[in-house]
Amino acid sequence: MDSKNLIRFLFFTFIIALLLLLTLTNIPYPLPLSDNSALLDCATNSRRCTIKQPPKPTTRLHTTDLPHHPLDPLTLTELNKVRSILLSHALFSNSNSFAFHSIVLDEPDKTVVLEWSHGDALPPRKASIIARVNGKTHVLTVDITTGVVTPVDVGEHSGYPTMTIEDMTSSTWAPLGNAEFNRTIMARGIDLKDLACLPISLGWFGKKEENRRLIKVQCYSMDGTANFYMRPIEGLTVVLDMDTKQVVEISDKGRNIPIPKAAGTDYRFSAQNTKHNLVNPISIEQPKGPSFVIENEHLVKWANWEFHLKSDPRAGVVISRARVKDPGTGEIRNVMYKGFTSELFVPYMDPTDAWYFKTYMDAGEYGFGLQSMPLDPLNDCPRNAYYMDGVFAAGDGKPYVRENMVCVYESYAGDIGWRHSESPITGMEIREVRPKVTLVVRMAASVANYDYIVDWEFQMDGLIRVKVGLSGILMVKGTSYDNMNQVNQPENLYGTLLSENVVGVIHDHYITFYLDMDVDGPDNSFVKVNLKRETTSPEESPRLSYLKAVRNVAKTEKDAQVKLKLYDPSEYHIVNPSKKTRVGNPTGYKLVPGGTAASLLDLDDPPQKRGAFTNNQIWVTPYNKSEEWAGGLFTYQSHGDDTLAVWSERDRAIENKDIVMWYTLGFHHVPCQEDYPIMPTVSSSFDLKPVNFYDSNPILNIPPHFEKDLPVCNAAASAA
Amino acid sequence: MDSKNLIRFLFFTFIIALLLLLTLTNIPYPLPLSDNSALLDCATNSRRCTIKQPPKPTTRLHTTDLPHHPLDPLTLTELNKVRSILLSHALFSNSNSFAFHSIVLDEPDKTVVLEWSHGDALPPRKASIIARVNGKTHVLTVDITTGVVTPVDVGEHSGYPTMTIEDMTSSTWAPLGNAEFNRTIMARGIDLKDLACLPISLGWFGKKEENRRLIKVQCYSMDGTANFYMRPIEGLTVVLDMDTKQVVEISDKGRNIPIPKAAGTDYRFSAQNTKHNLVNPISIEQPKGPSFVIENEHLVKWANWEFHLKSDPRAGVVISRARVKDPGTGEIRNVMYKGFTSELFVPYMDPTDAWYFKTYMDAGEYGFGLQSMPLDPLNDCPRNAYYMDGVFAAGDGKPYVRENMVCVYESYAGDIGWRHSESPITGMEIREVRPKVTLVVRMAASVANYDYIVDWEFQMDGLIRVKVGLSGILMVKGTSYDNMNQVNQPENLYGTLLSENVVGVIHDHYITFYLDMDVDGPDNSFVKVNLKRETTSPEESPRLSYLKAVRNVAKTEKDAQVKLKLYDPSEYHIVNPSKKTRVGNPTGYKLVPGGTAASLLDLDDPPQKRGAFTNNQIWVTPYNKSEEWAGGLFTYQSHGDDTLAVWSERDRAIENKDIVMWYTLGFHHVPCQEDYPIMPTVSSSFDLKPVNFYDSNPILNIPPHFEKDLPVCNAAASAA
Repeated sequence: MDSKNLIRFLFFTFIIALLLLLTLTNIPYPLPLSDNSALLDCATNSRRCTIKQPPKPTTRLHTTDLPHHPLDPLTLTELNKVRSILLSHALFSNSNSFAFHSIVLDEPDKTVVLEWSHGDALPPRKASIIARVNGKTHVLTVDITTGVVTPVDVGEHSGYPTMTIEDMTSSTWAPLGNAEFNRTIMARGIDLKDLACLPISLGWFGKKEENRRLIKVQCYSMDGTANFYMRPIEGLTVVLDMDTKQVVEISDKGRNIPIPKAAGTDYRFSAQNTKHNLVNPISIEQPKGPSFVIENEHLVKWANWEFHLKSDPRAGVVISRARVKDPGTGEIRNVMYKGFTSELFVPYMDPTDAWYFKTYMDAGEYGFGLQSMPLDPLNDCPRNAYYMDGVFAAGDGKPYVRENMVCVYESYAGDIGWRHSESPITGMEIREVRPKVTLVVRMAASVANYDYIVDWEFQMDGLIRVKVGLSGILMVKGTSYDNMNQVNQPENLYGTLLSENVVGVIHDHYITFYLDMDVDGPDNSFVKVNLKRETTSPEESPRLSYLKAVRNVAKTEKDAQVKLKLYDPSEYHIVNPSKKTRVGNPTGYKLVPGGTAASLLDLDDPPQKRGAFTNNQIWVTPYNKSEEWAGGLFTYQSHGDDTLAVWSERDRAIENKDIVMWYTLGFHHVPCQEDYPIMPTVSSSFDLKPVNFYDSNPILNIPPHFEKDLPVCNAAASAA
Repeated sequence: MDSKNLIRFLFFTFIIALLLLLTLTNIPYPLPLSDNSALLDCATNSRRCTIKQPPKPTTRLHTTDLPHHPLDPLTLTELNKVRSILLSHALFSNSNSFAFHSIVLDEPDKTVVLEWSHGDALPPRKASIIARVNGKTHVLTVDITTGVVTPVDVGEHSGYPTMTIEDMTSSTWAPLGNAEFNRTIMARGIDLKDLACLPISLGWFGKKEENRRLIKVQCYSMDGTANFYMRPIEGLTVVLDMDTKQVVEISDKGRNIPIPKAAGTDYRFSAQNTKHNLVNPISIEQPKGPSFVIENEHLVKWANWEFHLKSDPRAGVVISRARVKDPGTGEIRNVMYKGFTSELFVPYMDPTDAWYFKTYMDAGEYGFGLQSMPLDPLNDCPRNAYYMDGVFAAGDGKPYVRENMVCVYESYAGDIGWRHSESPITGMEIREVRPKVTLVVRMAASVANYDYIVDWEFQMDGLIRVKVGLSGILMVKGTSYDNMNQVNQPENLYGTLLSENVVGVIHDHYITFYLDMDVDGPDNSFVKVNLKRETTSPEESPRLSYLKAVRNVAKTEKDAQVKLKLYDPSEYHIVNPSKKTRVGNPTGYKLVPGGTAASLLDLDDPPQKRGAFTNNQIWVTPYNKSEEWAGGLFTYQSHGDDTLAVWSERDRAIENKDIVMWYTLGFHHVPCQEDYPIMPTVSSSFDLKPVNFYDSNPILNIPPHFEKDLPVCNAAASAA
């Protein structure tokens, strides 16, 4: 540093110190707007921006996309058209305060879709709109051809629509307009330009929080790391009015808690001092190309399967009309009309001021699809993947492209589809093995810190595996402890000490899937095949006991509210009572839960009321077009008056009807140090498995692998 | 056919008919031995033999194998030496009726193994022998160097050693020496040359079955199919004395039940009329070769892992001394001293005469390793796999090679090790993803009809996943029904009608693993981290409830008898109380159960007494070299007096001691038509996962995939 620079440095330091002092002591009111905008000028003032790279150009422009299928999402052109129809409609043209919270296809009635076949004219294209106008929520449909706008009566419900991205981003900057906030930040020794804040849905905890859209904002320091999540400014919570962006309340309780260190928190490859290449290059290779086709951007055909695939701002990925060809008859048979992630519920287990409200419902509050970022080719999905974009509407109605949001690929992990060797007992020289190749549809949502990987995996034997992987970054809590030897009551940490001054707070994840099964047609029944211990009489058998499979057909919704029990097990079948196999079993699919968790919160706890769709692991409801979102249409700040649990209590008839099954996958997450500073993926899954759907093993006659068919590969010349 | 041949044909037909008639009506005693041997002459008389191919030559002769590690299995040379030592020992040289039921390495004491390091002289090589001599079981050790044979006192236990392959095969032919048996077979219209019989362990149901080695034999027709399992001769059970091969009893009850048809049952590729190639060639490719090395045939080193791998006639595969390099310190840390499949328990749920006793314990009765057949390259394991042979001793003590019994390969399914994208909320351009590459160790046991695929999968993040896949062929029951519309009480079928005259009988599978965890050394504690609902007071929080993690250290064995409960969940940690992470958490691994099932049989039911190791899903015992086999050392016909459940009732201290964890993976299997004629694989797994074992994510600094590193592949010129 030469002397001129040194003088300049000292001068600026002095000025900054002076300003800080003035700020700390004198400013009783929000900074004037001009200062705000300077602070908010990302490119010059925030570290957050220095790690931004220029967005890559979208390779597919989507300007010429056309709908080809009744379920195809709104195209870019259609979204533009819907926007201009709406903007010229009196509701919006007479208001200067409105935002579009959702503009998606209004799917045609199921009967219309089921009757449609390839080559038919498309049913009228309509958009379904959720908008906020002058502080009021409106649900509308727009006929894209005629331009007719129709209000939709969805009944009276508590809650607000999914936030717009603009709601979220503007909330993160809004506290900087508040002097008290800035003062406490600076008092904690944090440079305002190092701030990174998150908009946190606040659930609903009674009267005080009703009748206005609120959000809580909590902040972190980005000084020294891109992983600001590991540097919480603990105990500081700003309550904002989301519509006015006014600070309603600041709770400032953790001033004595240090900001955890930055060292060791950055997970970016570029930030690693040492790099550990543990394995040689490995890849799934298909030199003759993938075996699937995607017709008209949305209709996926692979092996015996065919299904419609689209992205959705709320659900992420939607699988529709999943059908499979029967290898016996050649018939294309219905399996599932529609399947998607309906809602998530992520309650944190810390009742204190800055944490109790963290009970996220990521789909309804944040938009599971809105938060699904472009996948990273070669890493999020293997080399042989095909990528699909999402086309969504922003808060102002303008369409934008979320590139590479979904990938589709064939997977082969070395697993076995079926096998049999004759044993040494029979001595027969038989060894027949078929490799297992599957088709994976993947998306990854990054709801702020957490990453959810959702896979729909289709198997040749008719099984569909739905897998949820959790990765990303923990939501952590600052603490004054830096070693457990200082902690007298570890249970009162509400989590695990992960690093000096960092506690990973215990939380649950529930992911609830909507599964409109249509096994060989819409009218199905839900059958619990209970495995029940039977006892024998002494003259009957030397055995005292055995298990009997007792079939119980659920008549009404309450019969189908299921809590899983290891010691009272059942299989859960969706059968078509009017369709039988050759030997007379009803055709069906069964739900096979994997490892899971149940919510243990008090049923009267406000978060559990809102997340009451997790009160059971399985529910079955009669099909109802308006019952798609397990936490209610308007989840944000909802009171739990429109959940799956409320619908199910109506106890409607479900036998031999068009029914929807709901399954909730659960995780208890007690963090551990391995989750710091970023979590290795933890996964769980459930299966939809054919059960007497086929007359026999549908993959009996697939061939094994032969050496002559496999690719000829060489190491890349450039390989490390 | 010329006239000479025609005359010859008619003559032989006449003679055969005459013989059959004589057999049916006159022979009240076993066929003379000469006739037996004709019948038993496989090459000319049995269809079973026509689908035998000449055995392939063993590519590795193993004649020069040497032991390099204290845990290396006995080599071919050592086995030969043990045999000659034994044959010249008085116990055997003075007897003409003996068989070797097990000849394996007598592993050195754990302390000796832990002290040994590469380069040190091997501790004395000893063999552990279980033999039957003149109807009595002997346990011996043989010092291979000195030739000293030492009897071992294992205490008084019910039961017999694992059957030899010779026991099993000779039992399948023995009934043919019985005229009554042959008569009933022929009366059912079955040609004796079409018979395929299975030796079925009969469990233990009281006095009548004590004091001699018995086995039950049931038979099938191979006419028209290699899949004889689908053509049961229902209701016919022959009880044999396994030592004398005398028929003790014949139960002949199902004469009116037809033999199910052969059509559609053969699963061999060569037997398929239509072949369905659903996908293009796909392969896991590593043109720079695998990233693991196997030193001295048994020491596997991959990524951060190192472990000893061997095959075992009873357990199948044994993983020992699993250790992992800490990426922080470079230290090689202990994780697991020894892990293997200790026992299986497969009770069928049919209390009737021909079925009630089917309650297999596949490891202790049949030998899980003895039944592990050569893997099929490209199909059982992918192209990049390495294969390891098993070297076992036959009943006469002669060594033989079970080729390609185990495979080791790196797997990449397109999955994600960890990931994070910044969301649109923060707008930061971060997308960091690491692919997940794992190392799989696989074996597949074919215990007659069923195939068990056992995978030990090692992850770079320290996790070990143990996965069990079930495939192969169902054990089915003949029935007179050919359609469910004939069945009034479906519950009394004891299973599912799979095809005309075929019922798949309900059964369970339990696979119990021995897991001698040594987390950072032998002395560990078992901690149940219970998630318990806490309620709050109104002044404490707007929340009514949250979950608290309460740590309970198990003091004695009974504290560690765990039945899993969805609504009373815990994590199950094995920790080293004297080793802490940087911030003071005890280092540990946790057991993470996946989908599982619990045995619901009456605890007093004889099969459940013998399979009492399934009474809990988790047990922890103090390390005891003699407690390795959960169903007891002598499982065959045991009364359940030497099981894990009996040991655990001693309630020994287990806190901060060398402890062994036992986990049982369970499946309820209600067969479905898709399982006919061969079952698509069903899998479940559990994980051993580091929990505060590392100070932080151990795979933070592994690189992503880069295009430049991936292989360059072309379709094979010959590809289909």
